[in-house]
Amino acid sequence: MNHEPLYQQLVNEWITLIQNGVMRPGERLPSVRQACAMHKVSPSTILAAYRALEDRGVIEARPQSGFYVKSSANLPLPRMRRQSTALPTSDDVLDHIEAFMAAQTGEDFIDLSLASPRGSDFYPTGRVKQILNQLIRQQPELATDYPFPPGSARLRRQIAQRVVSWGCVLAAEDIVITNGCSEALSLALRAVCKPGDTVGLESPTYFALVPLLKSLGLSAIEIPTHPTTGLSLDALELLLSEQRLNAIVAMPTVHNPLGCSMPLEAKKRLAQLVNQYRVPLIEDTPHAELFYGQAVPDAVKAYDRDGWVLLCSSYSKTLVPGFRIGWIAPGRYLKEVTRLKVASTLGQPRLLEETVAEYLESGGYDHHLRGLRRHFMSQMERLRGMVASHFPAGTRATSPSGGCLLWVELPSATDTQQLFRAALAERITVAPGTIYSAKGRYRHCLRLSCCYPWSDAFERALVRVGELAGQSRNTTA
Amino acid sequence: MNHEPLYQQLVNEWITLIQNGVMRPGERLPSVRQACAMHKVSPSTILAAYRALEDRGVIEARPQSGFYVKSSANLPLPRMRRQSTALPTSDDVLDHIEAFMAAQTGEDFIDLSLASPRGSDFYPTGRVKQILNQLIRQQPELATDYPFPPGSARLRRQIAQRVVSWGCVLAAEDIVITNGCSEALSLALRAVCKPGDTVGLESPTYFALVPLLKSLGLSAIEIPTHPTTGLSLDALELLLSEQRLNAIVAMPTVHNPLGCSMPLEAKKRLAQLVNQYRVPLIEDTPHAELFYGQAVPDAVKAYDRDGWVLLCSSYSKTLVPGFRIGWIAPGRYLKEVTRLKVASTLGQPRLLEETVAEYLESGGYDHHLRGLRRHFMSQMERLRGMVASHFPAGTRATSPSGGCLLWVELPSATDTQQLFRAALAERITVAPGTIYSAKGRYRHCLRLSCCYPWSDAFERALVRVGELAGQSRNTTA
Repeated sequence: MNHEPLYQQLVNEWITLIQNGVMRPGERLPSVRQACAMHKVSPSTILAAYRALEDRGVIEARPQSGFYVKSSANLPLPRMRRQSTALPTSDDVLDHIEAFMAAQTGEDFIDLSLASPRGSDFYPTGRVKQILNQLIRQQPELATDYPFPPGSARLRRQIAQRVVSWGCVLAAEDIVITNGCSEALSLALRAVCKPGDTVGLESPTYFALVPLLKSLGLSAIEIPTHPTTGLSLDALELLLSEQRLNAIVAMPTVHNPLGCSMPLEAKKRLAQLVNQYRVPLIEDTPHAELFYGQAVPDAVKAYDRDGWVLLCSSYSKTLVPGFRIGWIAPGRYLKEVTRLKVASTLGQPRLLEETVAEYLESGGYDHHLRGLRRHFMSQMERLRGMVASHFPAGTRATSPSGGCLLWVELPSATDTQQLFRAALAERITVAPGTIYSAKGRYRHCLRLSCCYPWSDAFERALVRVGELAGQSRNTTA
Repeated sequence: MNHEPLYQQLVNEWITLIQNGVMRPGERLPSVRQACAMHKVSPSTILAAYRALEDRGVIEARPQSGFYVKSSANLPLPRMRRQSTALPTSDDVLDHIEAFMAAQTGEDFIDLSLASPRGSDFYPTGRVKQILNQLIRQQPELATDYPFPPGSARLRRQIAQRVVSWGCVLAAEDIVITNGCSEALSLALRAVCKPGDTVGLESPTYFALVPLLKSLGLSAIEIPTHPTTGLSLDALELLLSEQRLNAIVAMPTVHNPLGCSMPLEAKKRLAQLVNQYRVPLIEDTPHAELFYGQAVPDAVKAYDRDGWVLLCSSYSKTLVPGFRIGWIAPGRYLKEVTRLKVASTLGQPRLLEETVAEYLESGGYDHHLRGLRRHFMSQMERLRGMVASHFPAGTRATSPSGGCLLWVELPSATDTQQLFRAALAERITVAPGTIYSAKGRYRHCLRLSCCYPWSDAFERALVRVGELAGQSRNTTA
């Protein structure tokens, strides 16, 4: 007879299952309810077992998702030291983006930098092709009719239906279709700010925001952002109470580059703060539907009482990367955003909007998303394993809650600008940490992407970047 | 034996031909060289005859194009009095644009306002459809690959080839593909100006420029613009010499709304002026390929020595109104424009870019354009005839050199804002003159479009607008 407490027996069972490879790294454990049924024990016993496994570093909790077998890769979380070196200019960021883009067209380049799928089998191209052909045959006016904002009513209705599962109750009339999520962000910033205003950015943040803010005459304040829980609300509240922010941009679900998602309570508090201080929040969520859990967690927008949240997303990461179909639900700024869209770029190609609408209506999207998430999750596990094995001792990395981006913190003397140049000379592109900050922080950090199908060449490039990282020392640090 | 001078005999012959309907209004007379061969006389005799016919109001010269049988419509040219009334806001313009766009989706609306083709047979939809289907079958990655600026190299090469006939020598590398000509203008203004700068606009000008400037924090100075020769270069030079302009936007070929094209010498002087004063000129030419003559006249860009001209155009009026394929050749601002495009909207759908590139390569475009020009020219003739017959006495109108837009000057007490509202109540949209000016001039003017296939309903709407125009009096004038 086993004298260990019941929960300890469960812990041992699970460790055996994991050691035997029955449960693999990255796989989700049964929900507490499922586990109760399986083991015929009470929820408190299951929770005790899961917590013990978590304490031993065998599994990990992901906010709003459940418990997962922890990566075999022994990668501690980044410390997020806000190291600041020589100030970069927004041109530095654009120089790097140019190099990444050039790599896309160079046949022999290996790109580890962008979250921009290419020539892949991950997307339902066959079905999209079929719908497109059918539409252009049946409605040739989709090629000849001038498209005006806010874009296809059918597509906006589909988006409104889908975001119900993010906790958002929107009408088709609340949504404007844009040229990718990029234009959604750009319109949002122009609608809520005037030149000279100050915008709160997460630190690190999406790299294109740095030059975008500069081009609009806006200043940035960086707000500490945690690799598992996201934006620091204490720091944000301090800035809000000092009236130092005219707007905020945040990625509360599947952050770029950190991969984290804010816990539900934090999202509620964020919504409450921006409504209380009446400061617009641009909620940037192009990766949200790549959340590794069973369902996309609620958006901050779900708790937005008075329309201060401008929700931005797209189908560029999830369905048709080549079509540039993004959207924005601008809350109280609907009129301004629509008018800026009319004056700046007018409409989007209706043919592509209708193709996506028809695809969403026909019902295969959730099935496709499940496969895509599994796929990215498994590639992420391999990527983390490679980093653990081939990067210098002392390397830390995030444990993303979704998507295809990994944030890597190298030993503090590493200079990833130097690493970027060394890798580029060998036709490999990596994204150095400095471009994720308006203040040039994160010189010892790197963002890696696993958005392309895994290949030997990709694996060799990773090994080589690990070697180069060991040689790239910041001599001024 | 005929004792009249030789040229007078020719004049009588031509008048007979025109009275008999052998030569119809809008048709082009033989070139001087052709006429010499036909009549076996010297060029000076032909020129004397053509000038006499011009003096008698039977034919008209069009810059860089030749002589045309004048419209039977007895419509004197607008006087272009720079009447200024209550200042409108840029919101007024957007309110009107919203009404025009709403009319596009209302089935029972008759739109006389926009230059935005809809559901028409004027465009080679069959061929475009065929290319699109073929491309998506052969290159499914066009749907899945992330598109980056500057856009399809193949399309940019085709554009560079085509603009040779506009006098421009450009490389594919000098061109960036945009979301229609709207985005080209918006990027150009952002690249050359900073908030607080002043931009010289033609008066009247393209209506979307007024709110666009405002949204970018730019002021406008309106420069007198003549209904046949375009932008006043004397007025422009005055402003340049006083250093009052940071940039200029002009439409030197097929102006919107005036329909005029600047004479070649004026274009050369304009290029010389902006190079001398080092002030960027945004040359906006989406209607240029709808020029009624045999060939598109040279662009100002053709004479741009040092890259101060940013040439903007699109295929939205000429080939695929639904695809939003525009482009810009930004001269010395290439880097700034490319970077703003990356930061604001990223790329355009590559599938649609490649479709247009393939269409242009395959060689049917010039044939299509000839048909489209003939078509618009004939609809324009009918439109001018209707205005002459059904609008109040004293109405004047332009004699466009191309395109589908007619600028109508009503008796000075007419209030076209009131006319706009009265027409809208009867589900007809017209564009009141005030929205073509940042200063609210042209309250007695109207822009009419004939971009849709002619119909009885269109004709009835025109008659009704003529009646309403007689009743719309500006009581404050």
